[in-house]
Amino acid sequence: MKVGVVGAIGYTGSAVLGVLSGRPGTEVTVVTSRGDAGRRLADMLPQLSGVPGYRDLALEDPADLEKIKEKDPARFPEAFFLAVSHRASMALVPRVLALGAKVIDLTGDFRLKSPLMYPEWYKCEHTAPEFLAEAVYGLPEIHRAEIRKARLVANPGCYPTCVILSLLPLAEKSLLGPDSPVVCDCKSGVSGAGRSASVPNLFAEVAENFRPYKVVGHAHTPEMAQQLALAGGKPLRLTFTPHLVPMNRGIEATVYLDAEKLPPYPELRDLYEERYASERFVRFRGEGAVPETADVRGTNFCDVALFRDEAAGMLKIVSVIDNLARGAATQAVANLNLVSGEDEGLGLASAALRP
Amino acid sequence: MKVGVVGAIGYTGSAVLGVLSGRPGTEVTVVTSRGDAGRRLADMLPQLSGVPGYRDLALEDPADLEKIKEKDPARFPEAFFLAVSHRASMALVPRVLALGAKVIDLTGDFRLKSPLMYPEWYKCEHTAPEFLAEAVYGLPEIHRAEIRKARLVANPGCYPTCVILSLLPLAEKSLLGPDSPVVCDCKSGVSGAGRSASVPNLFAEVAENFRPYKVVGHAHTPEMAQQLALAGGKPLRLTFTPHLVPMNRGIEATVYLDAEKLPPYPELRDLYEERYASERFVRFRGEGAVPETADVRGTNFCDVALFRDEAAGMLKIVSVIDNLARGAATQAVANLNLVSGEDEGLGLASAALRP
Amino acid sequence: MKVGVVGAIGYTGSAVLGVLSGRPGTEVTVVTSRGDAGRRLADMLPQLSGVPGYRDLALEDPADLEKIKEKDPARFPEAFFLAVSHRASMALVPRVLALGAKVIDLTGDFRLKSPLMYPEWYKCEHTAPEFLAEAVYGLPEIHRAEIRKARLVANPGCYPTCVILSLLPLAEKSLLGPDSPVVCDCKSGVSGAGRSASVPNLFAEVAENFRPYKVVGHAHTPEMAQQLALAGGKPLRLTFTPHLVPMNRGIEATVYLDAEKLPPYPELRDLYEERYASERFVRFRGEGAVPETADVRGTNFCDVALFRDEAAGMLKIVSVIDNLARGAATQAVANLNLVSGEDEGLGLASAALRP
Amino acid sequence: MKVGVVGAIGYTGSAVLGVLSGRPGTEVTVVTSRGDAGRRLADMLPQLSGVPGYRDLALEDPADLEKIKEKDPARFPEAFFLAVSHRASMALVPRVLALGAKVIDLTGDFRLKSPLMYPEWYKCEHTAPEFLAEAVYGLPEIHRAEIRKARLVANPGCYPTCVILSLLPLAEKSLLGPDSPVVCDCKSGVSGAGRSASVPNLFAEVAENFRPYKVVGHAHTPEMAQQLALAGGKPLRLTFTPHLVPMNRGIEATVYLDAEKLPPYPELRDLYEERYASERFVRFRGEGAVPETADVRGTNFCDVALFRDEAAGMLKIVSVIDNLARGAATQAVANLNLVSGEDEGLGLASAALRP
Repeated sequence: MKVGVVGAIGYTGSAVLGVLSGRPGTEVTVVTSRGDAGRRLADMLPQLSGVPGYRDLALEDPADLEKIKEKDPARFPEAFFLAVSHRASMALVPRVLALGAKVIDLTGDFRLKSPLMYPEWYKCEHTAPEFLAEAVYGLPEIHRAEIRKARLVANPGCYPTCVILSLLPLAEKSLLGPDSPVVCDCKSGVSGAGRSASVPNLFAEVAENFRPYKVVGHAHTPEMAQQLALAGGKPLRLTFTPHLVPMNRGIEATVYLDAEKLPPYPELRDLYEERYASERFVRFRGEGAVPETADVRGTNFCDVALFRDEAAGMLKIVSVIDNLARGAATQAVANLNLVSGEDEGLGLASAALRP
Repeated sequence: MKVGVVGAIGYTGSAVLGVLSGRPGTEVTVVTSRGDAGRRLADMLPQLSGVPGYRDLALEDPADLEKIKEKDPARFPEAFFLAVSHRASMALVPRVLALGAKVIDLTGDFRLKSPLMYPEWYKCEHTAPEFLAEAVYGLPEIHRAEIRKARLVANPGCYPTCVILSLLPLAEKSLLGPDSPVVCDCKSGVSGAGRSASVPNLFAEVAENFRPYKVVGHAHTPEMAQQLALAGGKPLRLTFTPHLVPMNRGIEATVYLDAEKLPPYPELRDLYEERYASERFVRFRGEGAVPETADVRGTNFCDVALFRDEAAGMLKIVSVIDNLARGAATQAVANLNLVSGEDEGLGLASAALRP
Repeated sequence: MKVGVVGAIGYTGSAVLGVLSGRPGTEVTVVTSRGDAGRRLADMLPQLSGVPGYRDLALEDPADLEKIKEKDPARFPEAFFLAVSHRASMALVPRVLALGAKVIDLTGDFRLKSPLMYPEWYKCEHTAPEFLAEAVYGLPEIHRAEIRKARLVANPGCYPTCVILSLLPLAEKSLLGPDSPVVCDCKSGVSGAGRSASVPNLFAEVAENFRPYKVVGHAHTPEMAQQLALAGGKPLRLTFTPHLVPMNRGIEATVYLDAEKLPPYPELRDLYEERYASERFVRFRGEGAVPETADVRGTNFCDVALFRDEAAGMLKIVSVIDNLARGAATQAVANLNLVSGEDEGLGLASAALRP
Repeated sequence: MKVGVVGAIGYTGSAVLGVLSGRPGTEVTVVTSRGDAGRRLADMLPQLSGVPGYRDLALEDPADLEKIKEKDPARFPEAFFLAVSHRASMALVPRVLALGAKVIDLTGDFRLKSPLMYPEWYKCEHTAPEFLAEAVYGLPEIHRAEIRKARLVANPGCYPTCVILSLLPLAEKSLLGPDSPVVCDCKSGVSGAGRSASVPNLFAEVAENFRPYKVVGHAHTPEMAQQLALAGGKPLRLTFTPHLVPMNRGIEATVYLDAEKLPPYPELRDLYEERYASERFVRFRGEGAVPETADVRGTNFCDVALFRDEAAGMLKIVSVIDNLARGAATQAVANLNLVSGEDEGLGLASAALRP
C-alpha cells in the first residue's frame, strides 16, 4: 500500500512515519514539508534514517500534490496522513480527496460536527464545511463500522481520546447528563505542543516545573463533549483542564463524577468490564490498579481504572494514553488499517518502551 | 537562637537546615539522625558543607537528647524541628517538651484534632493524644495569633497547605458545604516521597512517566477537610487525588467547584483580593494569570489564581507551592519565627530559583 | 522458536521481552524471577500486558529449570536470555547448556577472557572458568561468524559496545597502542543501574543533577580494552569514565585521541566509511553531524561521527547507542538471530521512538 | 548601593536579580530589556514578584541610559550588570563607563585579551578594543586584587570558570604545557543556552536526550586556554567539548591529564589542598569524593576532586559549578562585592537547594 504524509517533519508527522516503518506492506511514497522541499527526509529526521524505505525519500512541497500525481500516478499514495497545523487541512482535504486518495486528518479541522463551532473554538471560519458531514470521527471504539467505509477520517485529538474512553461506558448508558458536572483534569507531555520554536516550551521553562494552560477554552473541550453527548443521546456538563508535565509523551486523565447520581459501584465496574472486554486496545485495569503513562508509551493502548471515594461520594476514573501514539500516530494508522480493510492492529506495537 | 533538627538527613530535615543557614542569628547546635550518630553532617550533606556553622556539627542519636542537654545545657536548643517519619513524633514530642524546648513538628502526628482519626488515616493508635489539644496547626494565614503563643506547632502537610490556601476565602465565608463536592486534583514533585530507597521512586520509574497514587485514602485528606470545616463552621464534601510529577519540587492544585452554588464571580474575585491583600506569602494572581510551580521554588510563597468556566458553570482555582519549602521547611521556619517573636519572614528568600 | 528469559522483571529482562514481542515466530515459554514465582508476568509488567503471547505466562523460579524441562520438554526453550545480576550467570550457564539450550548471557560473567581478571574487576572468583574459552563475545561487527556457531554468547556491556564501535576501525588497523592514551568519556541514562531500590538512584537524587561515578575501576574497562587489543594485535592505554545523565535510556561516548599519532584526517574518514559501509546497524554520520541519543532510542543502531580539533591536534569520536537496546536487549536478540540462523535484524525496529 | 541590570529578562539577568534580592543594602534602581520598555518587571518575572524592592520597577529601554541618568541622577546606579547577548556589550561598556558607573559584564566581549581573537571565535570585529586592556578577568581566585580596583570586570564564562578552577593549581606551577594535551570534557544544563525561542532547546528535543554541541570551536576554548597559559607562563594544548544535559542548571567538567608527565599523585593532592585551603568558594573534596552538580545548585561554590587511574597512567579532575550562579550571577555579585570594597561573599547563599 502506498501512503503519503503531509507535514512529515513535525512531531506528529514523524511519529506517523515511525509507526508506518513497522507496518508490513507499506510504502511511503510522498512526504511533504513546507519550506523543506528538496531536502532528504533521513537528513532531517536521523531517528528514521535506518528505515530502508525512507533512505531515498526527498521532501516535497505540499503545494505540488497535483503535479506529483501527474508526474507518476503509479506511485501516488492511496491514502494521506495530514499532520499539519489546524486550519491547513481545510484547504488540503478537498484537494487530496479530489486526487482520489483517502485522508486520515490529524488536525481538528473535521472533528466538530457544526461549522458554527469553529469561530469560537478554533478562532477561524471553516472554509470547507461541506466535508464536515462526511468526515468520520476516528475513534474505533465508537465508529469502527463507519470508519471502514470512510474516505475522510478525522483522527481524534489526544485529550478527547483519553477522556472519551474514560467515560464511554457511562455515556452509552445515558448516565452522564446536564445536571451533574463531569470534571476532567488532564495532564500531558510536552510533545503535544508541537515542534515550533517557542519560549514557553523551552526545556528550561518546562523542566522542574508544572503548570496548567488554557485553563478555560481549550479547543478539545467541545470535541469531548460532542462525542459523549452523541453516545448518550443527551448533553452533558463537562469541564476540562489541561496541564503540562515535564515529560515528552503521555496523557493522564483523572475524571470525577458524583457517585450519588450513578448506579452502585459494582454495576459500574461490570459495565466497564463488559464494554471493553472485546476492545483489544483498551485495557480495563479494574479497581485499584493505577494506570501509568509509561505503560502505554509508544503503543495504541488506553489503560483505564476505576476508584471509588466512598467518604466523599465520588467516582474517579483514571486513564492513560501516549499522546503521540494513541493520541495521534498509532490511532491514525489504526484508522488507515480500517479504511483499507486490514486488521485494525496491523503494524502496531504491543509492548510499551518502558523505561 | 539555638535550634535543633531531629532527622537531619532526610529531604525535609536537610531542607530545614538549608533554610536555617540563611536565618540571621541562628545557631544549629544539635542535629540527629538515627543510625548515623558520630558522622559529620557536612560529609553526609555536601550541599550544606559550605555553611560555616555546619562545618563542625556531628550527628547524634535522637535517643540521646536528654544526655545531650545534661552534658551542655547552654548549647541545648530552645526549639526543635522534628523531621522524622510519621509516628516517630508521638514519642519525641513529650520528650522534647519536657526538656523545655519548643517543637515545630513536620510529621502528621499532631495535625488531626481527634486521636480517633489516626487508626483510619495513619494506620496506628495515637500514643500521645494528650498533646493533640495543645498543638496548634501551623498555617499562619489561619492560626497566626495562636502560633505566637504555642509550645507545639503541627507544621501543615504539603498538599493541605496548597489546598487550604486555595479555598480559605470561600471557607471562611461558609461558602463550602456538604451539598456540593469540592474536587482537589493535586500534583507533586517526587521529593515529597522522602529519601528512602524504594523501587517506585527510582529515577527510571518516575522520569517520562505520570501517575496518580493513593487515589483514595491519602492521609492528607482529613487534614484539609478538618481545617476548612473549622474555618467555615460546617463540614464539607471534599475529594482529593495526589499525582506524581517527574520533577523534584513543587505542588500544584487544581480545585473545582460548582459555580452555580457560589456568589457571582466578581464577588469571589474581590473576596480573594481582600483576604490575601495583607498576606505577604500568598500572591493572589487574579484572574487568568497561570501559577507555575517554578515561580515559587525555594520560597514560602503560595500563588493563587481563579478561572471561571462559564460554559460548564464551574469555578477553577489554581494554586502552587514548593512542597519542601512552603509545604515543609520554610513554613516550619516561619513558625519558628512566630513562636520566637520574630518577624514571620526572617531568613526566608523572597526570590524563587528559576530556572 | 521457543525462548526463555531468566530474570524477566529487571530492566534488561523486560526490555528483552519487549523486543521479543515484535520478533516474528517467537514464543516465550519460560520466564523466571527469583522470589516472584507464581505471579503473572503481565501483572508485574503492565507495559507488556497487551502482548498476546505474554497474557498467560506465570513467573517461575530459576532454581526449577530442570523440573520445568522434565515436566514439558516440548515447551522448553531452545535458547535462554540470562538477564540476571553479575555472578549469577556463572552458576546458570552450565545448567542451561546442560539442558540443551543455547545461552545469550547479558551479564559480564563470560565477557573477559581470563578468569584471573574477575577478582580484580568483579570482586569475585570465577566459578565456571571452563566456559570462558567457549563463550563468544557477542558484538556482531567483530565476531559475527563465530556467533553463528556459538552455544554461549557473552552479550557485550553497554559502555563497551559504544566505545568499541567508536574505535574499531582504528584498532583493526593497529592504530591504537600503548604510547598514546585513549580517553573515553561516557555518559549513560539511569536504567543502566537496574531496578533495585537504592538511594543514589532515586528520582530526587538524579534529576537536575549530573555526576560521574566509579571514576576509576568500572568493570567495563577491561572489556573494552580487551576487545580493542585483540582487534589491533597490541595492548592499548585506555581510560574510561562513566557519568550518570538524568534520563532513562541512552549512552554517549566522546573519545579523544592524539591526532598527531594518527594518519591524516581524510584517511581516517575513509577508513570509517569503508569499515561501516556494510554494517547496517552502525550509521557512520561522517564529519560534523552530531549524534544524539534520542536518534537511536529503542533501536539497535550505533551512530558514529568524527571531529577534528586542529588547534589542539586532537581527534574526537562521538558515538551513541541505547543502553537497554544496542547495549543489552536488541543486541541480545540480534545474537539470538545469529545463533539460530536467522537474519541478524529479525524483529528489530528500524525507527527510533523520538521524542 | 544602587545597581542596574541591562538585559533583565533573560536567564542570566533574572538570575542576577535573584541573587541581588538577597544582598543586604542593595537597591536595584534601573532594569532594562529591549522591546519590553514600560512593562513591569514583576509581571514578566513572577518568580521575583515577591521581592519588595522589585514591586514597582518598570523596564526601561537600554538606549535611554543617558536620559535616565539625566532625569534623576541620584537614583542612577553606581554599577551595572550587563546581561546581554555577545557583541552588545561592545557598545554598552563605553557608554556605561562614560556615565560614571562600574561595569560587571557577563558577555564574552571583554574576556579575551587580543581584539584579533574576536573574528575567529565570536565571528565579529571588536568595536571597542581600547577597553580590552583595562578589563579585568573576574575570576577572584586569580585576579582578586585587580578586581578590587577595576572599573570594568569581564565576568568569566561558565565553562571556563569550571575548567580553570580544575587546573589552576597545576597551571600556576607551570605543570601544563604544549607537549601533553589537556582533555576537557564538559557537560552543562540547558539554561546556559539562554531564553530565546529555538527548536533545538525545546523540551522535547532535550529531555531524554544527550548530545555534544559545537564539538570543535566553542568560543569558551580560547578563554580557558588564555587564563591557564597566563597563570603558567606557557601555552598549553587544550581540547574542550561541551555537552547538553537534560537539566536546567549545572556544569560538570571531567579533565584528563597524562599522569606520567606530572609529579607523583600525593604531591598533586597537597598542591590542590594548599592552593584552595584559603579559598572559601572552592571546596576541594580530596580524592575519591565525587562532586555532583546538585551540591552547588544556586551557590557560588566550585567543588573539585582528583582521581588517579593508575592502570592507564592518567589523572582525572572532576569539578562542578552552577552555570547560572558561579558561572554567571553569583560570580558577578562576588565581583560587585569586590569592586565596591565589600566582603566577597556578601549576599551569596552558602547552602545549595538540593533536591
